[in-house]
Amino acid sequence: MYEDMKKRVLEANLLLPKYDLVKFTWGNVSEIDRERGVVAIKPSGVEYDVMKAEDIVIVDMDGNRIEGDLNPSSDLPTHLALYKAFRNIGAVTHTHSRWATIWAQAGKSIPALGTTHGDYFYGEIPCTRLMTPEEIADQYELETGNVIIETFRGINPDYMPGVLVHSHGPFTWGKDAMEAVHNSAVLDELAMMSWHNNVIDPALPQMQQELLDKHYLRKHGPDSYYGQKKKVV
Amino acid sequence: MYEDMKKRVLEANLLLPKYDLVKFTWGNVSEIDRERGVVAIKPSGVEYDVMKAEDIVIVDMDGNRIEGDLNPSSDLPTHLALYKAFRNIGAVTHTHSRWATIWAQAGKSIPALGTTHGDYFYGEIPCTRLMTPEEIADQYELETGNVIIETFRGINPDYMPGVLVHSHGPFTWGKDAMEAVHNSAVLDELAMMSWHNNVIDPALPQMQQELLDKHYLRKHGPDSYYGQKKKVV
Amino acid sequence: MYEDMKKRVLEANLLLPKYDLVKFTWGNVSEIDRERGVVAIKPSGVEYDVMKAEDIVIVDMDGNRIEGDLNPSSDLPTHLALYKAFRNIGAVTHTHSRWATIWAQAGKSIPALGTTHGDYFYGEIPCTRLMTPEEIADQYELETGNVIIETFRGINPDYMPGVLVHSHGPFTWGKDAMEAVHNSAVLDELAMMSWHNNVIDPALPQMQQELLDKHYLRKHGPDSYYGQKKKVV
Amino acid sequence: MYEDMKKRVLEANLLLPKYDLVKFTWGNVSEIDRERGVVAIKPSGVEYDVMKAEDIVIVDMDGNRIEGDLNPSSDLPTHLALYKAFRNIGAVTHTHSRWATIWAQAGKSIPALGTTHGDYFYGEIPCTRLMTPEEIADQYELETGNVIIETFRGINPDYMPGVLVHSHGPFTWGKDAMEAVHNSAVLDELAMMSWHNNVIDPALPQMQQELLDKHYLRKHGPDSYYGQKKKVV
Repeated sequence: MYEDMKKRVLEANLLLPKYDLVKFTWGNVSEIDRERGVVAIKPSGVEYDVMKAEDIVIVDMDGNRIEGDLNPSSDLPTHLALYKAFRNIGAVTHTHSRWATIWAQAGKSIPALGTTHGDYFYGEIPCTRLMTPEEIADQYELETGNVIIETFRGINPDYMPGVLVHSHGPFTWGKDAMEAVHNSAVLDELAMMSWHNNVIDPALPQMQQELLDKHYLRKHGPDSYYGQKKKVV
Repeated sequence: MYEDMKKRVLEANLLLPKYDLVKFTWGNVSEIDRERGVVAIKPSGVEYDVMKAEDIVIVDMDGNRIEGDLNPSSDLPTHLALYKAFRNIGAVTHTHSRWATIWAQAGKSIPALGTTHGDYFYGEIPCTRLMTPEEIADQYELETGNVIIETFRGINPDYMPGVLVHSHGPFTWGKDAMEAVHNSAVLDELAMMSWHNNVIDPALPQMQQELLDKHYLRKHGPDSYYGQKKKVV
Repeated sequence: MYEDMKKRVLEANLLLPKYDLVKFTWGNVSEIDRERGVVAIKPSGVEYDVMKAEDIVIVDMDGNRIEGDLNPSSDLPTHLALYKAFRNIGAVTHTHSRWATIWAQAGKSIPALGTTHGDYFYGEIPCTRLMTPEEIADQYELETGNVIIETFRGINPDYMPGVLVHSHGPFTWGKDAMEAVHNSAVLDELAMMSWHNNVIDPALPQMQQELLDKHYLRKHGPDSYYGQKKKVV
Repeated sequence: MYEDMKKRVLEANLLLPKYDLVKFTWGNVSEIDRERGVVAIKPSGVEYDVMKAEDIVIVDMDGNRIEGDLNPSSDLPTHLALYKAFRNIGAVTHTHSRWATIWAQAGKSIPALGTTHGDYFYGEIPCTRLMTPEEIADQYELETGNVIIETFRGINPDYMPGVLVHSHGPFTWGKDAMEAVHNSAVLDELAMMSWHNNVIDPALPQMQQELLDKHYLRKHGPDSYYGQKKKVV
């Protein structure tokens, strides 16, 4: 019944090691079917090279398992919180990719320093605040989602498809599983470059607003002119 | 009619991921046939692993499409401007390769610090000035070419086959598509090494002029003695 | 008689180059069979790509060779000392992996800066003191083990499966050879990320104790809820 | 007549890209047959992936070509100078490997910071002085050899199998072509690690002399006990 979804989520998860975004089992991708009210997510702690489509777990919006024999990723409550708060996103990816994690460990947002950034993220990529001991103790994974949502007050997640969780690592999203993973790869590359800029010049100003507008809007939104009108396969 | 040209431009574009100079579709190579007044260029937003020779777009010197079903790279106006201003170049490459992009984001020229640099680039590799809001708003890609050309007042592009565009990334050129890509790979390696020198010693002087002359001229120009007189295949 | 053990130790040793933790012969893995009182270890100075299961050397707890034609790794006395002092460990790995070695050369412990660290190492990963000229001169490899053991006074090796030996490199351990190697790979990744944090902000505080507790304990110990109850193969 | 030598030199040259020590044609390996008074060396400017054993050039000790249709590497005079001055070496390697080149561009010797260094290089790896305009102008490649030899006054090349040429890159040597290339790979790894130590702590002292002695002498010289007495293939 959810075969296509499972297959898509498996493929997206397998891109994580291919794009060098994860070591071992340090990442997960989920996708939502908003009509049916279900989410497909990677099982917890399973190695990528032995994962099969039937290992992908299907849960409802409360996290109850509908299909699959394995436990879902322990980060599931974070994914569910994001799906509920960000109504247009179709998939979520979490990794500990090295460069994004370095920024997360520093507790710093990633500044927009060039057009590579502006092609995907419309401004500084935010980092969440530290969580309180209570948030950590009680429903840690759910509260991780909540602190992300709090960080996005005043930020449109459709224009900012990623976040750094303080002392932890990045979450990204997109219209589907492939795009969410794509954004994770972009985020890590941006984090790599901006780290190196930061070392040479910690006071480097962010890119010109006009240039950020130009690059983001030539790829996204109604007046975009990058790429092909028809899908190129 | 343009089959050989398309094939060559395809092959050169495919070297970009092979040399680890691009992620996803973040780069493009074009080649000019000055006799016929046409340019072959990568289509916009097409993945490298599905690109075929017939996807390469042929345009005239005003950017009108002569052959091909797809839209040309959105950077086409930059390429055309360079071909018109730099009369000896036969190909142009643009990437967001990480180390060169870090220097571009810093808005700094890459100093000539060693013989690896001197073997290919005859002096400091320049970075363009910031573009004005008007240049960005109106004909952005054309103005990107113009700001490069402005930067080369007093610099011979035949001896300096590359540039950094401020807050953006590198463009390189060469006598043909392979050489333009080759120069992109060299530029990124130089950018990597000089970044690391810059961190350890921001005041490091550039290499001796005599050594730069020696290395550049033993590989280029009438008295060169590097390599084989006859082409080695 | 020790065929399975040799095979397992061979496989674990071959993971070292696969995980990019060693160049040439710069590493070794051993495993202990506490019931039989024997240790299986890599032979000294043998290239990984020609190593066979029968090359793995079996020694008793005094280091006497029981099976195998080759000399055991010169680091054997260090391994034996660790097995005698740390009663729950089943395997030891030593490498010169680049990022962990950089910290070891700096003589600094690796701070716990994020959840990636907390998932595996329960606190700062310690670095040993400098060895005395006498320790270096006499029984160098045994004394290397002793200085590690001294460093672990007050630290439980079951919660801290690795150490940096000053001016040398990392040793890690685990319940079996695969886990010891796994911990080496994790340690190097943590060392890479924390180095980059240290450059940007040498005064960066360690992660919150509550977050460290949460991550370490959700993966380890009786109340863990990460992964699958049953082994997933 | 020189088939074995050519084959060995070809194989050693092909290790350069395999070990990620060169881009394009940026490196060369030679080997000497002291009895016959000949040197086999890579041809100039030939790509590694098309190089064949018959392309390897055989020259006499004055650099006259004895066998081969191609021009020898333009660095040949440097190699010959080293063979004449360092009587025990059997092969020479030159690369522009990135980390060693960064140190060479900085004009700094590589400090001995850990046992990885001490296993191969008995002390600080020296960097040559700047060459004079006259040395650069006249017999540049020969003078490159001479400045290396000058740097080794008081240093035994048998215990220090490599050098950095200021503003240029590394040369290494060994008893045969494989060992010379091996030492190039080790040198680059040491350069990578020491660069990172230098950034964190520019005043970091070198390793203890006792530890350097221990590691160098347990692998080299009459009392070595690392590896196997008999050659392990």
